[in-house]
Amino acid sequence: MSGLHVHPVEVRFGDCDPAGIIYFPRFFALFHDAMETWFPARLGLRYAELVVGRKIGFPAVHTEADFSAPCALGEAIAIELRVARLGRSSIDLRYVVRGAGGDVRAVGATTCVVMDLDPASPGHRRPLAIPDDLRQKIERFMVADDEAVPEDSQGSA
Amino acid sequence: MSGLHVHPVEVRFGDCDPAGIIYFPRFFALFHDAMETWFPARLGLRYAELVVGRKIGFPAVHTEADFSAPCALGEAIAIELRVARLGRSSIDLRYVVRGAGGDVRAVGATTCVVMDLDPASPGHRRPLAIPDDLRQKIERFMVADDEAVPEDSQGSA
Amino acid sequence: MSGLHVHPVEVRFGDCDPAGIIYFPRFFALFHDAMETWFPARLGLRYAELVVGRKIGFPAVHTEADFSAPCALGEAIAIELRVARLGRSSIDLRYVVRGAGGDVRAVGATTCVVMDLDPASPGHRRPLAIPDDLRQKIERFMVADDEAVPEDSQGSA
Amino acid sequence: MSGLHVHPVEVRFGDCDPAGIIYFPRFFALFHDAMETWFPARLGLRYAELVVGRKIGFPAVHTEADFSAPCALGEAIAIELRVARLGRSSIDLRYVVRGAGGDVRAVGATTCVVMDLDPASPGHRRPLAIPDDLRQKIERFMVADDEAVPEDSQGSA
Repeated sequence: MSGLHVHPVEVRFGDCDPAGIIYFPRFFALFHDAMETWFPARLGLRYAELVVGRKIGFPAVHTEADFSAPCALGEAIAIELRVARLGRSSIDLRYVVRGAGGDVRAVGATTCVVMDLDPASPGHRRPLAIPDDLRQKIERFMVADDEAVPEDSQGSA
Repeated sequence: MSGLHVHPVEVRFGDCDPAGIIYFPRFFALFHDAMETWFPARLGLRYAELVVGRKIGFPAVHTEADFSAPCALGEAIAIELRVARLGRSSIDLRYVVRGAGGDVRAVGATTCVVMDLDPASPGHRRPLAIPDDLRQKIERFMVADDEAVPEDSQGSA
Repeated sequence: MSGLHVHPVEVRFGDCDPAGIIYFPRFFALFHDAMETWFPARLGLRYAELVVGRKIGFPAVHTEADFSAPCALGEAIAIELRVARLGRSSIDLRYVVRGAGGDVRAVGATTCVVMDLDPASPGHRRPLAIPDDLRQKIERFMVADDEAVPEDSQGSA
Repeated sequence: MSGLHVHPVEVRFGDCDPAGIIYFPRFFALFHDAMETWFPARLGLRYAELVVGRKIGFPAVHTEADFSAPCALGEAIAIELRVARLGRSSIDLRYVVRGAGGDVRAVGATTCVVMDLDPASPGHRRPLAIPDDLRQKIERFMVADDEAVPEDSQGSA
């Protein structure tokens, strides 16, 4: 489908619910964290520079997840991010959460709209055509033949 | 579709992101909070008594949400909960987030599995047929003709 | 010491850690929530109106808490807020967390600085003399002889 | 005072409040995260193994922090952990939050009690004498002459 960005996470006490596993709303924050590390790692852009400096936001208009196995306190897991579709002003991201052995714990998807956050702009709080530099970098990521593939996906990424 | 449970929420500083609106993963926690208040308010059962006392859990296996308008710091919003489907061991919940004027800000859905949390049980961490008392109470809620309907849904709940 | 504001809270699944009790960093968010409900309930001001409208912030410069007994999932607890001291541009708040029976679970204290959040102001991000209307309202609260005192503090509030 | 453990953190969107800086209750979770990484990095023990496997908990009985400068979205910060005192069944931890240039943003302190979490034990939920292996490892850390000292603390760690 696309290049692959891997965001490693260790499950902390504060991520867990009374069952000792990640409280499921936390997964959506972990997905967002993975997007934040994707920007510098694979697009060569700092997320904060886009949001604070260039006043471009990426609010979710849709998000979903399927949970197949829990993630317990102390586990080393990985959040995989891929781009499913790049629209005029939206980005469809896909997430896979894997355990240390590569087994799938959850899958997720988010549609982000690229939004004008500049209060001085006539398009304030409206969708924005994805800026050219950002579009080119995402397109390059989407066709990347990843070298840093995780062990369990060699040859298929 | 079903009876209606309304969980009122005021948007707190700690719910909000740098854009001054609810950070979207928080909505899934608010949905869960609405489920927790639904139990005593409409089923006559305490959620904690089920989870801690009877060792019955309600983990989400699927969840999703669409966000159409933001919820800002200080706003009084309402989380509406309805039951879309009652399976043998699963419950499909639907959520609508409304502003003070009744306008829709977000809609969501969660499929919970009713799970055996008793470590001493042979079915530990496996789905459980919904206990009879709980099933009856949910079925009664599903056909309830709500009296406490919000202003904007009179006659249609 | 002062008037008393009581902020009732029910302990939610998402507040709790793997021990099934409130994860202690959450108490500081609950203290902040109590401050947010204190503004409209006892000062006649909306917190969001101050922060967003008048661009006055209340960042903590010091905070602390002592935890004497846990708060478990499903418990109805109360966060009590009192004002210990009103400075030129700072407010010292005291918190007591009580169980349903009035027993103390935790005590806390926060020193907030009243801060200029207006980017267009020369004093942006600097402490601000507490505006007169706010100071008068807090002073009135501090000498209030509360009528809605909790059962366990009658005669001493 | 002691050996030094450094826990690096990048400030995420979800850590931040409407002012675009870390919401202060989050610091206490970051302190806890630093403790969780201290166990394997400097004590050779996995935190989850102690909590889940050996049923030993580390609840806070006191915690506090002073905030001197904010931490903004996207910043690379470091949480430094030191041990101030090792009691019979308690551990006093000290935290310093530094910006990328070594400047202090916040300092904190937590007193944890080592607690028996085993429901089958007569001492369930009571303080526990710190187990010998854990005490020896912490004592060794306390006198460690750290090699991986941050730039700004050479010669004084």
